Amino acid sequence: MQNLLKGLVQKNSTKIVLVVLDGLGGLPVNGKTELEAAKTPNLDALARDGACGLHVPVAYGITPGSGPGHFSLFGYSPIEFQIGRGILEALGLGMDVRKTDICLRCNYATIKDGLIQDRRAGRIPTEQSSKITARLQSAIRKIDDAEILFAPGMEHRFAVIFRFPEPLSSDADAVNDTDPQKEGKASLQPMAAAQAAERVARVAEKFVAAVAAELKEEKQANYLLLRGFSVMPHIPSFDEVYGLNAVAIANYPMYGGLAKLVGMKTPHVPGGVPEEIAFLKANYSSHDFFFVHVKKVDSYGEDGNFEGKCSRIEEFDALLPRILALNPDVLVITGDHSTPALMMGHSWHPVPVVVKSPYVLGGLCSGFSERECTKGELGIFPTVNLMPLALANAGRLKKFGA
Amino acid sequence: MQNLLKGLVQKNSTKIVLVVLDGLGGLPVNGKTELEAAKTPNLDALARDGACGLHVPVAYGITPGSGPGHFSLFGYSPIEFQIGRGILEALGLGMDVRKTDICLRCNYATIKDGLIQDRRAGRIPTEQSSKITARLQSAIRKIDDAEILFAPGMEHRFAVIFRFPEPLSSDADAVNDTDPQKEGKASLQPMAAAQAAERVARVAEKFVAAVAAELKEEKQANYLLLRGFSVMPHIPSFDEVYGLNAVAIANYPMYGGLAKLVGMKTPHVPGGVPEEIAFLKANYSSHDFFFVHVKKVDSYGEDGNFEGKCSRIEEFDALLPRILALNPDVLVITGDHSTPALMMGHSWHPVPVVVKSPYVLGGLCSGFSERECTKGELGIFPTVNLMPLALANAGRLKKFGA
Repeated sequence: MQNLLKGLVQKNSTKIVLVVLDGLGGLPVNGKTELEAAKTPNLDALARDGACGLHVPVAYGITPGSGPGHFSLFGYSPIEFQIGRGILEALGLGMDVRKTDICLRCNYATIKDGLIQDRRAGRIPTEQSSKITARLQSAIRKIDDAEILFAPGMEHRFAVIFRFPEPLSSDADAVNDTDPQKEGKASLQPMAAAQAAERVARVAEKFVAAVAAELKEEKQANYLLLRGFSVMPHIPSFDEVYGLNAVAIANYPMYGGLAKLVGMKTPHVPGGVPEEIAFLKANYSSHDFFFVHVKKVDSYGEDGNFEGKCSRIEEFDALLPRILALNPDVLVITGDHSTPALMMGHSWHPVPVVVKSPYVLGGLCSGFSERECTKGELGIFPTVNLMPLALANAGRLKKFGA
Repeated sequence: MQNLLKGLVQKNSTKIVLVVLDGLGGLPVNGKTELEAAKTPNLDALARDGACGLHVPVAYGITPGSGPGHFSLFGYSPIEFQIGRGILEALGLGMDVRKTDICLRCNYATIKDGLIQDRRAGRIPTEQSSKITARLQSAIRKIDDAEILFAPGMEHRFAVIFRFPEPLSSDADAVNDTDPQKEGKASLQPMAAAQAAERVARVAEKFVAAVAAELKEEKQANYLLLRGFSVMPHIPSFDEVYGLNAVAIANYPMYGGLAKLVGMKTPHVPGGVPEEIAFLKANYSSHDFFFVHVKKVDSYGEDGNFEGKCSRIEEFDALLPRILALNPDVLVITGDHSTPALMMGHSWHPVPVVVKSPYVLGGLCSGFSERECTKGELGIFPTVNLMPLALANAGRLKKFGA
């Protein structure tokens, strides 16, 4: 699909705004979904006039993680472009990921007599583990020719990057996890399954030894386990594929990180949704595609907090007129996946979407909700179709064939 | 898709029941389809609360046979996994098909002076042809190293298996039909198009000669034609792909046979739908996936008997509470294809489906019918998506990507 698009893309001066309310889709509790229960006069008005539908991020029945959810929204096949877990962890902790890097998600662990006693080091408090991580960063800065970068995470988790002097090939991350997956076993030796991964495995082995030596006096976090070796995938950029000068406006690092993988600008935007929208307004002239990410809708869904999720949706609805005032040529409002409060986690359910543009039918839905969107003109469709649709509505796609 | 699923499947204690009302979909006669004309209070209640939609077994406009219809329902691409006609015939006649077998659908024919006079031996009565088949079975038990197994069919039709001592390779069935397709021509020599098929062609040639010798005194059925040489395809099992311990509850042999190809248990379940449901109840604890097949809906459709089809649907509806009483975690009720009485045969029309689970929107359809299902939350979708959806609703699929 993206190859088809490349030959059809034409540039113009239109503006496209994609608002992602993370985990937007829901399920009924006492008869109403979060979107149905929330008071959303502005979204409802958009849905009445706009093109609505529901999109399927990966496939029927498949629950997407944040990586596949966003890649689909950006128009990249989430099956073709799979993002390594090490990369996601590093992005989520705000690390700058480059083509020279091997990213790793790490656990502090407890070892005794060569056997892993606790794979999570008793889930030591974040404050304590952050100090240990800072100490490791001071002590371990380079192994062989790889620069070593740490980022502290929650409890026993942290991320590490091995930064080599030059870009790595796509199989440089073919190294197994050292995590034995069960307590009472020895940790595994990092072994290369491809030639390009051999230097990485050597660095990993020395790295584990160096960390273990540093931590030997710790009671709980006296060892570490390495998981998800991953190199940055080669992904054609938004500019290459769509001819778009795109910016991500996201105050949680992972989402800016995902956007950076497809070549979006990722300025630091502190604050909440009002600050994100203020940033959108202030930078409206300097880009033509804006990815605005609203995190908290998902967070309350994950917590099973139905009312909390509703109130975050209402909060966004109240701010929506500020985006409408910019009068973007195409405005898309949707989620990256569903996170029903009922399920306290991501789910496979199709995600409601509304597209505002002068070139829609409209008049099919009475408001913005999962059920109303089933009546919309977009139907139930794969999420990767959204980007071509946005480009088309922006007049950025030429006719295919004569 | 199944490769993707394999990595996501997790086991739990949930129960999934898939009820297939064979040939369920219909078309209006005097303004109403069979489902619309039938009184189905229980199905209608399910449709009001459940997730509804319509599924497309193969592709728009393609009318599926029973093989592709069921393979799609089981989540196997009906284009990738094509079942040979010989196998279907053998399964339909209740034969036990193994990896060592070449299956054949055979016709009795009339030959004179080396030319086929009648390709169907005057459609001799079933009673008469069954006797001939029994006689052949007594006379012909082995050719070369292949055991020969016969099964009588309707009128001039019967099935034969060549059972070799060891499993056959996938190209062992590359032998042409001997049927010349037109009267007045000689039957064709069975020729191998692959090395692995040469012994099969030799057995076939000797087999035709042996049968002809046995039948030379018959007036009508004095010859036979071989069609659809087929070896059992390699199909990953339900257990391998979905981690499901599955059982088929089907009182027509072909459907148990199809289920057996994907590794389901296929106990003998005599009787009608009440006996099938009783079997379901009695064996509810020993499996986690139940395929319940209801044949007669299709049979009346094939006969063009609109009222008969309605009454079979009503009969099932009246029994539905017995299934509901088991409270399965996920209940899917649908068909394998449409068989509108209006058309007196299978058709390409999408098939209505309802999914009962705690994780649905519901509230979109006023009853269970083709037209109401167009309003449902599942949309119109490829049939192969049903299995992932059932697994997801049963909590048997992990998240894809982080």
